[in-house]
Amino acid sequence: MTVEVFEMKLSKLGRNLKSSLIRDLLKYATVPGAISFGGGAPDPETFPRKELAEIAKEIIEEDYRFVLQYIPTEGDIELKREILKLLNDVYGINDLDEDNVLVTNGSQQALDILGRIFLDENSYVVVERPSYLGALNAFYTSFPHFISVPLESDGIDVNYLERVLRELDEKGEVGKLKFIYVVPNFHNPAGVTMSLEKRKALVDLAEKYDVFIVEDDPYGALAFDEKPPMPVFKIGGLDRVILLNTFSKVLAPGLRLGVIIAEKDIIRKAVMAKQSADLCGSGLNQRLVARFLQRYNLAEYLKPTVETYRKKRDAMIEALEKHLAPKGARWNRPGGGLFMWVELPEGYDTMEMLDIAKEKLVFYIPGAAFLVDSINCHSMRLSFCLPPVEKIYEGVERLARVMETYKEEKGL
Amino acid sequence: MTVEVFEMKLSKLGRNLKSSLIRDLLKYATVPGAISFGGGAPDPETFPRKELAEIAKEIIEEDYRFVLQYIPTEGDIELKREILKLLNDVYGINDLDEDNVLVTNGSQQALDILGRIFLDENSYVVVERPSYLGALNAFYTSFPHFISVPLESDGIDVNYLERVLRELDEKGEVGKLKFIYVVPNFHNPAGVTMSLEKRKALVDLAEKYDVFIVEDDPYGALAFDEKPPMPVFKIGGLDRVILLNTFSKVLAPGLRLGVIIAEKDIIRKAVMAKQSADLCGSGLNQRLVARFLQRYNLAEYLKPTVETYRKKRDAMIEALEKHLAPKGARWNRPGGGLFMWVELPEGYDTMEMLDIAKEKLVFYIPGAAFLVDSINCHSMRLSFCLPPVEKIYEGVERLARVMETYKEEKGL
Repeated sequence: MTVEVFEMKLSKLGRNLKSSLIRDLLKYATVPGAISFGGGAPDPETFPRKELAEIAKEIIEEDYRFVLQYIPTEGDIELKREILKLLNDVYGINDLDEDNVLVTNGSQQALDILGRIFLDENSYVVVERPSYLGALNAFYTSFPHFISVPLESDGIDVNYLERVLRELDEKGEVGKLKFIYVVPNFHNPAGVTMSLEKRKALVDLAEKYDVFIVEDDPYGALAFDEKPPMPVFKIGGLDRVILLNTFSKVLAPGLRLGVIIAEKDIIRKAVMAKQSADLCGSGLNQRLVARFLQRYNLAEYLKPTVETYRKKRDAMIEALEKHLAPKGARWNRPGGGLFMWVELPEGYDTMEMLDIAKEKLVFYIPGAAFLVDSINCHSMRLSFCLPPVEKIYEGVERLARVMETYKEEKGL
Repeated sequence: MTVEVFEMKLSKLGRNLKSSLIRDLLKYATVPGAISFGGGAPDPETFPRKELAEIAKEIIEEDYRFVLQYIPTEGDIELKREILKLLNDVYGINDLDEDNVLVTNGSQQALDILGRIFLDENSYVVVERPSYLGALNAFYTSFPHFISVPLESDGIDVNYLERVLRELDEKGEVGKLKFIYVVPNFHNPAGVTMSLEKRKALVDLAEKYDVFIVEDDPYGALAFDEKPPMPVFKIGGLDRVILLNTFSKVLAPGLRLGVIIAEKDIIRKAVMAKQSADLCGSGLNQRLVARFLQRYNLAEYLKPTVETYRKKRDAMIEALEKHLAPKGARWNRPGGGLFMWVELPEGYDTMEMLDIAKEKLVFYIPGAAFLVDSINCHSMRLSFCLPPVEKIYEGVERLARVMETYKEEKGL
């Protein structure tokens, strides 16, 4: 088949799929000697390997009729019950039952499913600016119109959002706005947390203009200083908010376990979409986590993990103050999670600067990767989860040298 | 949110998703005392639980940095190498490398990904009549035009297919035909195997009209009598054929492991589609199967499994001869796999008859479930994999009574 015919055989999506920048970057990040602030992969030393190894052996031997067989598309009922217990214990959300829960292959599948059941080419979707790249990729496959609303240090700019909604309404288009996608806790990539006032304002706007909110909360349990405000879900309720969560950052991403919490009609549609996407998840992985949660207290188990990440955040801020502050860089102090957003002075195009970073064996994700319109941009995401503390110091020092070289080359 | 607004918020796909018939049926099939010929779930006693339990414990303890972490979207390199070895050992296919392989969450995700990267609303796709329901569901999410080509006892009707292709070509539409989807070995649901002559003719037609063939081969390793003819993939090669396989029927479906074997440009697109669908598969499940294949000979391990299913097939045929042949039913003798296709005399609407079957606690899948245009239909799929031999006899006897009751009610 010729290249031309092959192109013609592809769907619109097939033709438009592009390799993600992060994906390409991660290849370089494994170069020996490299220090990567790129990916969001958790520190594997935090994984409860002994506990999971024991449970895995036990359930494969004893529960093989379940864990090695097809399971219901909705997910393992034992895991769903543990998830409901967690929602109650952590957030005091207690008005749900198993039919409000769909277990997915990581949050990414949850995002993909929501994109598929809600978005068409003529749909609108509101995202934050910057926004989680995986969500943008998932929603992109339906080719909707993205509306990006600036993110401030206390969360999404609700005044800007209100203007956007009013304008859509005046054009008679607000019905085509399907949902507002937010990451309220320890934002990826921006590190910020939405204030309680903004959470309430967001729900009020969603009520007024009758749209859904998709609340993605992978990092809420990784709070270093104080607990984040109550979930948007708790304010807006089932009728208004779809809540996503994942075990990737609190247990282990290799288990590929995420969850959609939503109104039953939404879960029903999501289950059917998952059924055509992959029939069902892995009974082994789902029961493994169910048993872990039955036997261990997740909050207790997480304490050393959170302490590890807190130290790494502190190390990164200390290093930034020493090496990057003198060069005019600015950043936020994330109260939890895995990421910091660093703004360099005007003139530093972080995408262009990446070539120098590669030479000097330090990696970050350019801010442009998290924008719908990938314009040039002087920000970057630094993740502090994977490198050990001493490598964090060294990596930030390398970044300072990268900036120096870039400055000289550009004559800034 | 009102029901009307909710409907408006859904995408075209969201509005059109329907619960699958099989899915609904499987709920009834777990009623105590029921005998189910419905699902395609393998016999759990065939799963290598001791071996998998040992390996799981070992790799979680020792390889936790890999198995509990994010893995490459393409899949575990160790598993990809084992898959390439299997293709060489079983089929003598030896001109591939790792870039021709994408590991998926069961074949269902492979089907879904192919649908997404190839099919648009104005695309054509050829399927067999009857065809695997999961494939129809996956392709349906892109809303293509389905062209269904009758299946004969030696595979797809190539003369009919040729007429269809010629007509499309005359209309100038053949470029919009993306692929021909076939299950050549021990077909689901029809049980038939495509002859070597037809495999060659199929490839010739695909060459002539410049379309892809998607060859789905979940059951090829489950041959009871003689090995099936060589894969269509081996005849048509990488340039023409996309090969799907799965470990669901030969190891365990709960591991959710399928594979796409294809030309590198296709794999590249499929990898990007998988990345937006779920980032990556489970390192635990992938490495688990890689290690199993490194340590055990799959063909040897499969011998008792194949013997189990062969006995079940023989039991089902014996029971059909005794109880259903006198009532005018006809069937094929599948040379392997898990399914038989039974045709009742005209007048028996197997969808309608299902209500009586439910009462008498025996389950099958009505033939209409496997057709693009679900017209009434006097065929049914019986799967012989899950019930023990004695239940197969009993279940077929129940089916005979279901037919009697239906005949009386209808005055046939």
